[in-house]
Amino acid sequence: MQARIHIITLAVSNLERALRFYRDGLGFKSDGIIGTEWPGDAVTPAGAAAMCPMDDGFILALYPRSELAKDGRVPFAAPKTGEFSIGQLVGSRAEVDAVLTQAKAAGATITDLPHDRPWGIYSGYFQDPDGHLWEIIHNPNM
Amino acid sequence: MQARIHIITLAVSNLERALRFYRDGLGFKSDGIIGTEWPGDAVTPAGAAAMCPMDDGFILALYPRSELAKDGRVPFAAPKTGEFSIGQLVGSRAEVDAVLTQAKAAGATITDLPHDRPWGIYSGYFQDPDGHLWEIIHNPNM
Repeated sequence: MQARIHIITLAVSNLERALRFYRDGLGFKSDGIIGTEWPGDAVTPAGAAAMCPMDDGFILALYPRSELAKDGRVPFAAPKTGEFSIGQLVGSRAEVDAVLTQAKAAGATITDLPHDRPWGIYSGYFQDPDGHLWEIIHNPNM
Repeated sequence: MQARIHIITLAVSNLERALRFYRDGLGFKSDGIIGTEWPGDAVTPAGAAAMCPMDDGFILALYPRSELAKDGRVPFAAPKTGEFSIGQLVGSRAEVDAVLTQAKAAGATITDLPHDRPWGIYSGYFQDPDGHLWEIIHNPNM
């Protein structure tokens, strides 16, 4: 198996809300909601989703929780958070602070204010409107 | 905020088991468990983790669920799955099938056998030992 990841698909409760957060709040590019021509049904996942192409070719996808459960054939249960985090490296401590401030203004919840961690990084965490964790990191050794 | 993701950290129940799956089962590179010099305590997250540098500079990190909850200051609850998926694009339908076969042999659960989806891709899903979803995709239009 190749050691490559091309897409992270975040399961979201409300596609419009998630798109507003990432596109309008954080400033990510997106052509908006696509795939509405596939309505889906009780078993078949609907196609509506939003893609945010990242600056490095990576894609952050937003997809309703109910449809990801159908698409991957996993149980659809109550919303859950904290089983992973997405990391972004930035160039300075001030930039960590600034990104968290921007995320909060966009509607994120700051779960952990930026601070030095024993392993040599300065970072803080926020949760997007669906509870997905982002850690914004300054590593002076990188 | 930059539109960049550098790291995905998967919350895992058993670090050794997760490392065996990704390194020994799927063949990802890893220097093994690092950060054991930070034992942590009831509030402070321990540092032990495993990093798998991917072929494109991206890092897949494995970190105990309990410690990620402390590090991000989110509630530590029962294990949960299906709130996101990681996508990998491969070059052919046969390669989709082969990766799923390899993943199953490595201990993954195939939740959705490869098939054509209405939006023009051929893909299948597996769950790693912690339930994290991977979708292996062939898109003939890319």
